[in-house]
Amino acid sequence: MIIKLEKVEVQSRKDMEMIDMTADVDRVVAASGVRDGIVLVMTGHTSSGVLVTEGVECLERDVLAHLERLAPKQPPEGTYGYWHNRYLDSDGRVGFNAGDHLKSILGGVSCFFPVENGVVVRGSRQRVYFIEYDGPLARTVLIQVIGQ
Amino acid sequence: MIIKLEKVEVQSRKDMEMIDMTADVDRVVAASGVRDGIVLVMTGHTSSGVLVTEGVECLERDVLAHLERLAPKQPPEGTYGYWHNRYLDSDGRVGFNAGDHLKSILGGVSCFFPVENGVVVRGSRQRVYFIEYDGPLARTVLIQVIGQ
Amino acid sequence: MIIKLEKVEVQSRKDMEMIDMTADVDRVVAASGVRDGIVLVMTGHTSSGVLVTEGVECLERDVLAHLERLAPKQPPEGTYGYWHNRYLDSDGRVGFNAGDHLKSILGGVSCFFPVENGVVVRGSRQRVYFIEYDGPLARTVLIQVIGQ
Repeated sequence: MIIKLEKVEVQSRKDMEMIDMTADVDRVVAASGVRDGIVLVMTGHTSSGVLVTEGVECLERDVLAHLERLAPKQPPEGTYGYWHNRYLDSDGRVGFNAGDHLKSILGGVSCFFPVENGVVVRGSRQRVYFIEYDGPLARTVLIQVIGQ
Repeated sequence: MIIKLEKVEVQSRKDMEMIDMTADVDRVVAASGVRDGIVLVMTGHTSSGVLVTEGVECLERDVLAHLERLAPKQPPEGTYGYWHNRYLDSDGRVGFNAGDHLKSILGGVSCFFPVENGVVVRGSRQRVYFIEYDGPLARTVLIQVIGQ
Repeated sequence: MIIKLEKVEVQSRKDMEMIDMTADVDRVVAASGVRDGIVLVMTGHTSSGVLVTEGVECLERDVLAHLERLAPKQPPEGTYGYWHNRYLDSDGRVGFNAGDHLKSILGGVSCFFPVENGVVVRGSRQRVYFIEYDGPLARTVLIQVIGQ
């Protein structure tokens, strides 16, 4: 059994951003020598995500805008508040990114694909995205291949 | 190590529909000869999903209706619009299914279960669903078994 | 290849509650003898979930409150109703937890992490939670380690 884990560094440049990681996933699988197995992709951060969707720029904008609608950084005036937006002893500062953690939960933090004959089995429209909700930051995405 | 990948063809008959794939998952596991391992299920399409929930018809209707409420095909009049609803060079037509891609992200595109003694370890209420957001279409669901 | 599956019993004490399972996951991995591989975590129940987020009590409250906002137990007066809230032959009672099944779908039912050198590879803020939407109940969480 072959097991290869690569930690890919990603630098987000905006507060919220979708970064296409598909080429990285393909590269790690090709380098692993795995013919048949799976590849797993995961973010190492709780205000970011990993998800699978179609790779067009207009849809990237829709995904970011819609997750902000569903889990806003600031709740609409006069509605609700976030408990996390208070002084946190553990951080020595006021928490501010509750909405970004919530986006991370809604959009998901990981994905996987089968590998067959050395190739990632991916639908023709499917792309793998790292999604930043709380940037810009230096981030780590885990890509792991398991197989034979 | 045994690794078996089956591509199951699914024909959705409605615009939005939940199709119970549990028997397919059980069948692929039984045919694989795997005693202990995992089974992974994934859709190959970005306007559809795979998810786990209870298998009753009234709940299927609630899941479809609620995802449409959270990520509507047409946003409520006078609120927001989708960037994806414009002419797409890559498709040669106007994008129309932004809301369906968003549903796919919210509901998820894959699931997995442990396999023990040749049987899928599944809670008594848990069923595996393929969920169509943009049908009717011919779809492919990947079911992969890995183990020994 | 080593494959170990442990069924961890969890007793929720509230209607909705987040229970940190990170120590259980670490314990099962350590006991498995796996040096390199993956650990998979999954709930066995369709009105509960498993998810990854930061481990602070104020955020736990936000996650629970926000999922209740997105998929309420009772829809706002005069809006929509749940089909599941009717007499269910299969249960011999009226369904009441449609909103909790919907929360389970939105928040997710499973997660996984790589294992490297016998240790779970987890971001510094990432914790693994079992999340109860419909308690208090006795629940089972599956933790499976696969590797070598």
